[in-house]
Amino acid sequence: MKLLRYGPPGAERPGMLDGDGALRDLSGLLPEIDGAALSPATLSHLAAIDPASLPLVPGTPRIGAPVARPGKFLCIGLNYADHARETGKEPPTEPVLFSKATSAFSGPDDDVQIPRGSDRTDWEVELGIVIGTRAKYLDKDAALDHVAGYVLINDVSERRFQSERGGQWTKGKSHDTFGPTGPWLVTKDEIADVQNIDLWLEVDGERRQTGNTRTMIFGVAHLVWYVSQFMTLEPGDIIATGTPPGVGLGMTPPTFLRAGQVVTLGATGLGQQRQRMVPA
Amino acid sequence: MKLLRYGPPGAERPGMLDGDGALRDLSGLLPEIDGAALSPATLSHLAAIDPASLPLVPGTPRIGAPVARPGKFLCIGLNYADHARETGKEPPTEPVLFSKATSAFSGPDDDVQIPRGSDRTDWEVELGIVIGTRAKYLDKDAALDHVAGYVLINDVSERRFQSERGGQWTKGKSHDTFGPTGPWLVTKDEIADVQNIDLWLEVDGERRQTGNTRTMIFGVAHLVWYVSQFMTLEPGDIIATGTPPGVGLGMTPPTFLRAGQVVTLGATGLGQQRQRMVPA
Repeated sequence: MKLLRYGPPGAERPGMLDGDGALRDLSGLLPEIDGAALSPATLSHLAAIDPASLPLVPGTPRIGAPVARPGKFLCIGLNYADHARETGKEPPTEPVLFSKATSAFSGPDDDVQIPRGSDRTDWEVELGIVIGTRAKYLDKDAALDHVAGYVLINDVSERRFQSERGGQWTKGKSHDTFGPTGPWLVTKDEIADVQNIDLWLEVDGERRQTGNTRTMIFGVAHLVWYVSQFMTLEPGDIIATGTPPGVGLGMTPPTFLRAGQVVTLGATGLGQQRQRMVPA
Repeated sequence: MKLLRYGPPGAERPGMLDGDGALRDLSGLLPEIDGAALSPATLSHLAAIDPASLPLVPGTPRIGAPVARPGKFLCIGLNYADHARETGKEPPTEPVLFSKATSAFSGPDDDVQIPRGSDRTDWEVELGIVIGTRAKYLDKDAALDHVAGYVLINDVSERRFQSERGGQWTKGKSHDTFGPTGPWLVTKDEIADVQNIDLWLEVDGERRQTGNTRTMIFGVAHLVWYVSQFMTLEPGDIIATGTPPGVGLGMTPPTFLRAGQVVTLGATGLGQQRQRMVPA
């Protein structure tokens, strides 16, 4: 299934794509796509529905982030060896974990704000994991049982705020609109091999990032297991799994986003995003 | 006003203290103490009520964290010069900002879990700021207008997870039960001078921390203004403002918490907490 939320910011309604890719209204069946909606029981119930029986949504409404305000927006740093190298760092020996403010979540095609005083706003195409059931001190081979599905994420980052303003990355990762997510939550049954997903990103039509999840240092199952050793993962929580090479910080010379530019990105099976850069 | 939430974990009800310190049930007036309940309009409405007209809550129920699952649990690092020194670091030139997982919030007297594999679980008594209204790119002199009130927080920390597992502090700050908060949200009108609040913490009855918010490097108004330059603060968001000297990491030799120990802490006007350490 491809689940999504559509409508104005703060007033999104739940929807799903039908077999033809048309948008169907789920609001008669489900109040929201949130943690509660991602339980195996609810997902099975939804999977048994004929999408053609649901109301067709007219027009082309705005698409929101596909999960209503998750409790956590966790991120893994430097999880592709080539990306670690381009930032001048050694590949980590265990996952680097940080978080973005959940107020940073935005729709896949919403404008991205360049913060005031920023001269290093950068892009990062990523695979995001969506947690389906509570997970704490998991056994490694049970980790994927707790995953509801996957999303496309742009982990937008302000490099100067991230690295030169105290050492903790929170400031550079948490600005409003720094977490475009979606268009869809794709349930895991639709992803044949999560460690073989192509990722790409372009700025004004020029290719910047080209990668595949097969070159992750720590794979999806490892990451879910690992994070569960430090805290309880709850339904709806999202883990962005790191970015492949090609960020602006790694270019020669380093190159960052300016108001008016357009970023497009995508991942196999997870859809595409398009963001216009605007001043905050 | 002193607002609080009482009852079993996950099923707390809203309450307030009356003039005699007795617990009164607010659930007839308010569904929850959450971001929406902290608007100036709702707080004014509550302030106009005679607590004696509310049902008295019998017995001594468990007290939960006083705000229902905030969107952000932000923390300021090294915000007391003496504490920065005891950790071996220079006082920062601007606030150090990091975050705890919101799943770490717990009640003021709930057991604190020592994570598996932990040998450096440490205490940190702190003043917490509770945001009342949305705040972005504030002017400095407007910062306190966006504060609803204050809470007592124990920013429990696993030092090895914090500092030796990748550099970002998230792993050492986010374990379940690492955020005892409350007992009360004390509205700002009850705090004569937020920069003159005594803070103390004891382990098994031995004094470990003694401080006062007057020795903060960056005061409350500065912190709210500062964080709003990096992200939108939303109603209910909590900012823990750093700890005074006396943490276990700074002792000679460094001394950490063991299962069975009891931590008590308090702050002028904000009440007290008592936690028993238990294995996770």
